[in-house]
Amino acid sequence: MRFERKDLLGLEELSPEEINFILETSESFVEISERPIKKVPVLRGLTVVNLFFEPSTRTRTSFELAEKRLSADTVNISASTSSAVKGETLKDTAKNIEAMSIDMLVVRHSAPGAPHFLAKVLSCPVINAGDGSHEHPTQALLDLLTLKKRKGRIEGLRVAIVGDILHSRVARSNIWGLTKLGASVVVCGPPTLIPPEIESMGVEVSHDLKGAIRDVDVIMMLRIQTERLEECFFPSIREYSELFGLDSEKLKYAKPDVLIMHPGPLNRGVEITPEVADGPYSVILEQVKYGLAVRMAVLYLLGGGKFESENLDQKW
Amino acid sequence: MRFERKDLLGLEELSPEEINFILETSESFVEISERPIKKVPVLRGLTVVNLFFEPSTRTRTSFELAEKRLSADTVNISASTSSAVKGETLKDTAKNIEAMSIDMLVVRHSAPGAPHFLAKVLSCPVINAGDGSHEHPTQALLDLLTLKKRKGRIEGLRVAIVGDILHSRVARSNIWGLTKLGASVVVCGPPTLIPPEIESMGVEVSHDLKGAIRDVDVIMMLRIQTERLEECFFPSIREYSELFGLDSEKLKYAKPDVLIMHPGPLNRGVEITPEVADGPYSVILEQVKYGLAVRMAVLYLLGGGKFESENLDQKW
Amino acid sequence: MRFERKDLLGLEELSPEEINFILETSESFVEISERPIKKVPVLRGLTVVNLFFEPSTRTRTSFELAEKRLSADTVNISASTSSAVKGETLKDTAKNIEAMSIDMLVVRHSAPGAPHFLAKVLSCPVINAGDGSHEHPTQALLDLLTLKKRKGRIEGLRVAIVGDILHSRVARSNIWGLTKLGASVVVCGPPTLIPPEIESMGVEVSHDLKGAIRDVDVIMMLRIQTERLEECFFPSIREYSELFGLDSEKLKYAKPDVLIMHPGPLNRGVEITPEVADGPYSVILEQVKYGLAVRMAVLYLLGGGKFESENLDQKW
Repeated sequence: MRFERKDLLGLEELSPEEINFILETSESFVEISERPIKKVPVLRGLTVVNLFFEPSTRTRTSFELAEKRLSADTVNISASTSSAVKGETLKDTAKNIEAMSIDMLVVRHSAPGAPHFLAKVLSCPVINAGDGSHEHPTQALLDLLTLKKRKGRIEGLRVAIVGDILHSRVARSNIWGLTKLGASVVVCGPPTLIPPEIESMGVEVSHDLKGAIRDVDVIMMLRIQTERLEECFFPSIREYSELFGLDSEKLKYAKPDVLIMHPGPLNRGVEITPEVADGPYSVILEQVKYGLAVRMAVLYLLGGGKFESENLDQKW
Repeated sequence: MRFERKDLLGLEELSPEEINFILETSESFVEISERPIKKVPVLRGLTVVNLFFEPSTRTRTSFELAEKRLSADTVNISASTSSAVKGETLKDTAKNIEAMSIDMLVVRHSAPGAPHFLAKVLSCPVINAGDGSHEHPTQALLDLLTLKKRKGRIEGLRVAIVGDILHSRVARSNIWGLTKLGASVVVCGPPTLIPPEIESMGVEVSHDLKGAIRDVDVIMMLRIQTERLEECFFPSIREYSELFGLDSEKLKYAKPDVLIMHPGPLNRGVEITPEVADGPYSVILEQVKYGLAVRMAVLYLLGGGKFESENLDQKW
Repeated sequence: MRFERKDLLGLEELSPEEINFILETSESFVEISERPIKKVPVLRGLTVVNLFFEPSTRTRTSFELAEKRLSADTVNISASTSSAVKGETLKDTAKNIEAMSIDMLVVRHSAPGAPHFLAKVLSCPVINAGDGSHEHPTQALLDLLTLKKRKGRIEGLRVAIVGDILHSRVARSNIWGLTKLGASVVVCGPPTLIPPEIESMGVEVSHDLKGAIRDVDVIMMLRIQTERLEECFFPSIREYSELFGLDSEKLKYAKPDVLIMHPGPLNRGVEITPEVADGPYSVILEQVKYGLAVRMAVLYLLGGGKFESENLDQKW
C-alpha cells in the first residue's frame, strides 16, 4: 500500500485502511528513537516549516525532533514573530513560505479549517498540528498507536473521553479514529461542555463519571482550560474536579486493566490527581514517546517515498 | 572575477560590476532549490548568526533557509530574547557573538548605519538585512534578479517605485541598484512621503500614479505602514488607496507587458488590490523565490571561495 | 580518568580532580573552533534540548553553538513559548521532553535547585545553565579556563570578586571553583550586597575596592542589575559606581599584570568604565571564547565516551 494523500488534515476524511497504514508505518519508526544514533536520511535536503499561530511546546518540539531525526532542514515560524502581525493574510504568508521551495508545512492555527484552506492553495503537503477546536490528527494517531501497543488492538475496545468535549480537537480527532477502527466511545462531561449533536458522531453521552468509566478499557482525560471558567461553562474548578476529575476514589469503579491517557499539559489536581497521573494505569509518557514516531511516519509518508525501507536499518 | 569585499552593507557602495557579479552568481544558485535534495556543502562547518533587532518573518526565514541549504550551522538571535534589553551596547553584543568564532553575521536593526558600524568593529563578514529606512541590499538584489530573469536585462528599463519613498529602505536600495545598472527610475507618492532632495539620486518625481506608470516596464509597489497614518503623513487609508493604490482601473494606463513587484508583506486593498497582486503581471512570488538564491549567493561570496564551483553540480 | 557524573549541576559538589579534568578536556576543544570547518561528529544523532525559563542570549547561544559544533540535534524551548504558562509543573515539562528520547537537557531557571531537582527525576544528563542566585557552573569553568590559559595556573592566585555577591550565581560558582583549586578569594561590595555568612565559604570580605584589588592577580567584576536599585540595596547608580565601579583611577592600585574579567553583559559606566573594559588588562572576550570550549567539553563528557579522541583530529 502507498499513502496517496497530499496532506494530513484530520481523521474524519481518512479510511480505516489509511489510519492502519499510518499506524503500521509508525511502529517501524519507534525503534529509531531508541538507537544510539537517532537519525535516518529519509528527508535529507528537504525543508519542513513549522508555522505555529498558537503557542505550543510539546507538539512543536515533537514535530521539530521528528523532522531532525529524519534529517530534514527545519525552520520554525511563530505567530509572535510573523508577518501576521503586520496584517498579512494567512494565504499570503503561506504562499510566501512555499515560494522559498519548501517541501512540507506543519501548521497550527486557532481557526478551524485553516490547514484545509492552506492545503488547497499550496502545492506542498500540509500537516494539521491542531486547528481550533476542530482536529488534531497526529494526537489521535499517537493515542491510537499507544492503545495498539498496549492493548494489541483497537477494535472492540471501549473508550471514555472525559472533560471539555466541546472545545477539544483531541476529542474530535479521537472520536473519528476510534470509531473508524471499531472501538466504541462514550463522552463524559458537564452538559455545558458536550456539543448538542455529538451522538451523530456515533458516541454515547454520559454526565456521570463513575458510571461512564465502569466498563471501559481506556479513560482519556482532557485538559480543562481555566479560561473556560471565566466563560461560565462551569461554576468553579473545585466543583468541576469533584464531579469530573479523576482520582483514586473514582478509579475504583474502573476495570482492573484500564489505561489512563491525557494529551497534556496536565492540570494536576484539576482534571486528574497526581496519584492517578503517575500511577500504574497511566500511559501518559508513552503517548509522548509514540507521538514522535507517529510524526516521523506522517512526515515520511507525505514526503513521498523518496526513501527505501532498508535505509531504516542502516545507520547513517 | 572575485568578490573582494568583506561585507554587504548596501548597494550605494557597490560598482555595477560587483552588482552584476552577485546577480550572475545568484543565477547558479536558483537551480539548487529546485533539486530533490536542496543542499550543497558550501558553508559546511561554518557558523552564521542571524541577529534581528526588528521582527521579520520573510527575510529571516529566507536567510535561515539559504544558510541551511549551504550546510552552515545557524543560530537566530532576536531582540526580544537578546541582552539588548539588559542595556548592553550593540557593539558589545556583536563582539560577544564574534568571540564565539562565528563566520558571518546577518543583522537587521532599526538604526540606519548599524550594520556599517558592526562591519567596522567585527572582523567577520556582516550582511545588512535592513537598517532603518536606509538600505536593504538583498531585497534590491532579488528585485534586480527578478527583472533580469523576466526582462532579460536591466539596462534601459524604466521603473516606477510607488508609495512611501521616505521611509523605505527597499526604495533606496533599488534606486541605487537600478540606476547603477542603467535603468531609469521615477518615484511616485504623496509629497509628504517623498524625501525633499531625492532627485539628487538621479530619479524623477511624480505625484500622479496614472501618469507615472504610463510608460514604465516595471511598477514596484511599496508597503504602506499604517502607523504612518497616525504620524499624519496622509489623511486616511481610503484616500491613500484611491490616489496611490494600484488597481485594475489604474493598471489600464500601464504598458501591456508591465511587471508588478512588491517586497511584501502585502496590505491587500491598501497599496494594491487582490486582482492586481494575484494577476498576470505580478511577479511577487518570484521575488521571494529569487530572494533565496540571492542570499545563498551573497553568503557564498562573503564566505570566501572555500568552495569550488564543480561542487554545485554534485549532490551531497 | 573518566568523568563519572551523570549531571553538571554546580562546582560545589565537584572535586578538584574533576574540575581539572573538565578544564583539560576543554583545552582540546579550544582548537576546534579555530578550524576552517568547526565541526566534529562527537554527538551526531544525539538530541540536546536547551530549556530556558529565563531569557539569555550569550549562554543559550554558546550552548547552542557548542551542540551544533559537536553535530548534535538541538531544540530550544523558552519560557515564553512553553507549557509552563499553561500551569504545567516543571517536572511534567521535563518528563515530557525526556519522553521524546532526548540525550541531554540544558536548563536555566530562576529557582535555585531547579536543575538538581530535574537531575533526580530524569535519567538523562542535566546541565545547569544558571539557577537563580545559586550556581552557574559553566561560567565558573570558563573563568577558570581563562585564568589557566593566561596565568598558567590557578593555585596560589589571589582573586577579587567585586559587586553584587548576594545575588550572583557567578560569584558563588567561582568561589567554589577557585578555592577548590587553591586560589584565594576576596569578595568586595557594599554590605547590603554581601551575604552575611560568606566567610564560611573560605573567602575574605572587603567593602573597600581600592584596598581589595591592591594585591590581587585577577579582578572579576559582576554585573549590577538595575532592578536591585529599586529594591533599595544601594542608594543610587552614581554612588555605586563611585565606590565599586572599576575605572582607570582605581585600577592604578592594582598589580601591573592584573587580569580583569566580567561575565557580561556589561553595564558600561556602571560597574566598569569603557577604558577598563576595553583596556589591555581585560580578558572579557577571551572568557566568551573559552566558554564555548568549556561547554563543548561538558557536553562531550556527559555524552558519555561515545567518542574516541582521535576523531577530534579528523575533519568531518
